[in-house]
Amino acid sequence: MNQQTIDRIRKFSEDRDWDQYHSPENLAKSIVIEAAELLECFQWSDSEYDLQHVKEELADVLVYSQNLLDKLGLDVDEIVNMKMDQNEKKYPVDKSKGNAAKYDKL
Amino acid sequence: MNQQTIDRIRKFSEDRDWDQYHSPENLAKSIVIEAAELLECFQWSDSEYDLQHVKEELADVLVYSQNLLDKLGLDVDEIVNMKMDQNEKKYPVDKSKGNAAKYDKL
Amino acid sequence: MNQQTIDRIRKFSEDRDWDQYHSPENLAKSIVIEAAELLECFQWSDSEYDLQHVKEELADVLVYSQNLLDKLGLDVDEIVNMKMDQNEKKYPVDKSKGNAAKYDKL
Amino acid sequence: MNQQTIDRIRKFSEDRDWDQYHSPENLAKSIVIEAAELLECFQWSDSEYDLQHVKEELADVLVYSQNLLDKLGLDVDEIVNMKMDQNEKKYPVDKSKGNAAKYDKL
Repeated sequence: MNQQTIDRIRKFSEDRDWDQYHSPENLAKSIVIEAAELLECFQWSDSEYDLQHVKEELADVLVYSQNLLDKLGLDVDEIVNMKMDQNEKKYPVDKSKGNAAKYDKL
Repeated sequence: MNQQTIDRIRKFSEDRDWDQYHSPENLAKSIVIEAAELLECFQWSDSEYDLQHVKEELADVLVYSQNLLDKLGLDVDEIVNMKMDQNEKKYPVDKSKGNAAKYDKL
Repeated sequence: MNQQTIDRIRKFSEDRDWDQYHSPENLAKSIVIEAAELLECFQWSDSEYDLQHVKEELADVLVYSQNLLDKLGLDVDEIVNMKMDQNEKKYPVDKSKGNAAKYDKL
Repeated sequence: MNQQTIDRIRKFSEDRDWDQYHSPENLAKSIVIEAAELLECFQWSDSEYDLQHVKEELADVLVYSQNLLDKLGLDVDEIVNMKMDQNEKKYPVDKSKGNAAKYDKL
């Protein structure tokens, strides 16, 4: 996400004085609510879905995720790279290649 | 997220030949699963939470969201700005200021 | 669920003095957290799943649902029949037969 | 849930020929989707909620849970008691009383 988009998300909340509702817990609830709406696009079929609807719901997940990053003062690249460090250790290429098993089943 | 981080996420899946599991539906399931793990950090308290755990689960949401953007060939700024256009119309400042009501209750 | 099972669920919480954590909101979070763990059984495949794991996670959903019924003093048959009244109106047999479309798309 | 209510849920799906959509995976998705709609009742507040809406969404969780029990041929009392056996071992009264910590943190 570029800085202009991030700034737009921040201004949207500021203009509406919504920071008061953006506790980390409320944002975590909001992310799962939007993620479930995204999943609803695939509720009865894995192949037929409304792409426009998918875009809107995925965008909602990303907006609330940005709100949570902001609320907690987190840097997206820092936390994602920290997690990728973990993932690369938990899922070594030689054991995980072509295998969707969870790390504790490898 | 910067290009280097995005490239790392892509390489991680490519190295493991995991693209075969990354159908849009499977990624939508994965996003909601990780979002619920994020929520679990706040299951019994809205004020006491393990920040490191929050970072890891939020990162998981963001990684799978990036996977879905990639799978569908979407541009994050384009879909987020499209959604912000909608949000700005649905939640006019004069009606929404300091008010968390859903748009259909405004 | 028979009365003996319901009583066991109630006694479990009472013995641990957990009613203090069982606000409706916390129980709603708990239901979605367990529902996502149930979904995790099907994360990468719709046909291969660990039935024992499915049973455990579905049971968790049902236990927290019973906790919420208790917390709000609700009768399960009353609320389910109230909802089935709505569903039968929203999804008339002649329009919905063999059709998974949501009611607003019928 | 009494037998009459269960029979009504079953007849509703049969009349609409919806068993074809009720794969275990689709039902697991449906349970988490409805659970998130239940959570939405508490998105911005833990104390102010629309009880009628809560009833409807909790009923939806219970209906899809019954559908999944039926699909897998499970007995609700059997799986809940099996899980309560586990819970009673994981959360001994002397360690868990008045303590919401997860079993691996006790």
